[in-house]
Amino acid sequence: MSVTLADVIRARQVLHGVVHKTDLVPSQVLSGEGREVYLKSESLQQTGSFKARGAHVRIAGLSKEERARGVIAGSAGNHAQGVALAARHFGVQATIVMPEGAPLAKVAATRELGAKVVLHGGGYDDAYKHAVSLQQETGAVYIHPFTDPLVIAGQGTVGLEIMDDLPDADTVVVPVGGGGLIAGIAVAVKAMSPQTRVVGVEASGAASMRASLLAGRIISLEHSNTIADGIAVKTPGEEAFAICREFVDEIVTVDDDEIAQTILFLLERCKIVTEGAGAVTVAAIMGGKFDCRGKVAAVLSGGNIDVTVISNIIDKGLLKAGRRAKIHTVIEDKPGRLNRVLKVVSECGANVVSVQHDRAHLEAGIGHALLELVLETQDREHVGRVVQALEHQGFRIS
Amino acid sequence: MSVTLADVIRARQVLHGVVHKTDLVPSQVLSGEGREVYLKSESLQQTGSFKARGAHVRIAGLSKEERARGVIAGSAGNHAQGVALAARHFGVQATIVMPEGAPLAKVAATRELGAKVVLHGGGYDDAYKHAVSLQQETGAVYIHPFTDPLVIAGQGTVGLEIMDDLPDADTVVVPVGGGGLIAGIAVAVKAMSPQTRVVGVEASGAASMRASLLAGRIISLEHSNTIADGIAVKTPGEEAFAICREFVDEIVTVDDDEIAQTILFLLERCKIVTEGAGAVTVAAIMGGKFDCRGKVAAVLSGGNIDVTVISNIIDKGLLKAGRRAKIHTVIEDKPGRLNRVLKVVSECGANVVSVQHDRAHLEAGIGHALLELVLETQDREHVGRVVQALEHQGFRIS
Repeated sequence: MSVTLADVIRARQVLHGVVHKTDLVPSQVLSGEGREVYLKSESLQQTGSFKARGAHVRIAGLSKEERARGVIAGSAGNHAQGVALAARHFGVQATIVMPEGAPLAKVAATRELGAKVVLHGGGYDDAYKHAVSLQQETGAVYIHPFTDPLVIAGQGTVGLEIMDDLPDADTVVVPVGGGGLIAGIAVAVKAMSPQTRVVGVEASGAASMRASLLAGRIISLEHSNTIADGIAVKTPGEEAFAICREFVDEIVTVDDDEIAQTILFLLERCKIVTEGAGAVTVAAIMGGKFDCRGKVAAVLSGGNIDVTVISNIIDKGLLKAGRRAKIHTVIEDKPGRLNRVLKVVSECGANVVSVQHDRAHLEAGIGHALLELVLETQDREHVGRVVQALEHQGFRIS
Repeated sequence: MSVTLADVIRARQVLHGVVHKTDLVPSQVLSGEGREVYLKSESLQQTGSFKARGAHVRIAGLSKEERARGVIAGSAGNHAQGVALAARHFGVQATIVMPEGAPLAKVAATRELGAKVVLHGGGYDDAYKHAVSLQQETGAVYIHPFTDPLVIAGQGTVGLEIMDDLPDADTVVVPVGGGGLIAGIAVAVKAMSPQTRVVGVEASGAASMRASLLAGRIISLEHSNTIADGIAVKTPGEEAFAICREFVDEIVTVDDDEIAQTILFLLERCKIVTEGAGAVTVAAIMGGKFDCRGKVAAVLSGGNIDVTVISNIIDKGLLKAGRRAKIHTVIEDKPGRLNRVLKVVSECGANVVSVQHDRAHLEAGIGHALLELVLETQDREHVGRVVQALEHQGFRIS
């Protein structure tokens, strides 16, 4: 193998005092039914993701001459911040190409770390191509997010830390994008504890590593489509693929609905902020996607999620669970009618969040008004009771 | 003093293997300008707050006869879950009185831990009184959230852990409600490191400990008013007051606006979920409320915040920072007019979140329509540019 336990241990030495040894926190709400779940949240790592590790080890390995040329990377998010932080540490100029639509918060965070940010193209692929062409012009050193052995060794330190804190782990479960993280972790974990299973989780809309392992060769997907943008990778890395083939026991997938629900669950019940990529491992545990008996250490790879996305996920999650309900009805446009509706709602124990009463709405017809109520409810069954009570009073609910 | 370092060390022995030694995480974004900030987030503690510590130590100290009688507590949130978890651990029946309006998620979490939940009254005071009267009926042992020496010793273990991880802390900053947490921490920290400053932070709408220390006797506030419901305490505990008088260097306050902004900051930049009470220490650091040079350890006391509140804080925080803008204008109700507005907006580089076009609105007058745009913008300055560009095209913005 191109990356060995010794490489990961050397990487840990390089990272000592630079990155944070993140905590492995036992999760009461996820445990039970014969399993003990521990969460390693790299959200609380410098820059909000594990990428700070590999980028630092890679840049630490540059010669004096290479450092003078500066470094360059194409990234939509986490790798950008990891490279920027590491470059600043070594006094190296970093240029990061990000897609034009990148969330402003990520662009600002990367600039704050001293990197020069170039906005180019509509997505990661365009940004990547532009970064490669800029690299050829400027001679800066290209820092790839997952193909490099030093990067893989750096990410592997996550695995060493898990082995320190939970040496008898039965399973370590890891998000998979390009494969750098799981490859590094698998090298470390299998060397320390061969009987510990290493399970990868991909988004079902970007399961290129799973497809490649099944085919026995690297497969490139034509499209990737997932809310977990941190692991929306169409072609896994070569090194990472070879290591996964040797050391990874299983790769499973979760879909976007499962990911969104898990982001909300982690926020609400575990008080952990994760991005989509970070949530896939817990989504796989909750969905019973693999045998998770015994002691399970789940890596949450990062927390760089847009707060507007969090707000949307909360709003949609509450609707889905029946903890919030939107009810439409047409009522006669006469005094007292709105009151009657609200009385029924309050008698059912639901709270009114908002009322919209639209007399001009086309559906309503002359002499009628369309009423939209947003209610705070307990669950779907409770929503059903409210609807039933309204229908019992002669209101037609849609 | 009624609580000594030895008591806190004994409490730690009782808690060994039961509660989690939470991590002390260096925060890059909060450090700089001569300070190094470390965050101890009890959000990641069992039950989502430090209350699990004191409740466990208190119930561990009950006699066999007392355990057989069961325990009772009045609580709007964190203490409820702490008592429920500890009671379950010792096989003791717990009854928790919660106010009728308590968030359903907290009620459900408390029930999940095996406690009998009684909903009574409109607020914490009513629930407390009902719990006391139930206690007299049933003979169960009342577990007070902050007046008991064993509870204070349990909370003090937070201070011991800080001393383990950062023995040369210059300042330890702690949220203050009834005072149990800061009292325990102050006992431990001052015994281990007398030169370390202990600073408390209260919500300005419930600053009863500050008032009491200034007066030199316990002061009861008539009202408390703050979004930080976990520290909305009108009368500090007696033990806690006596300890704070001896050991606490300073108490400062932060207002609700500062708390809400900090909840958003911690979520977005530090990837930490906190409730209002948990955010006050970082709010005080960001507001420069005390001398925070050197190494500062900030305790974030808990993370039990309603997700709907998070969603509201995000929405309001984005508006406030100019990252989202609501713009109203009256336009002629003719083809092409709406298009012209949207063209100007897009030329300014703002994204449209939603459009409402209301022809029936009273303000608009016949032949006109009221237009409400919600836009995604960069900052207040950017909002100003969009408004200016629209006004330049003859639209009147309100």
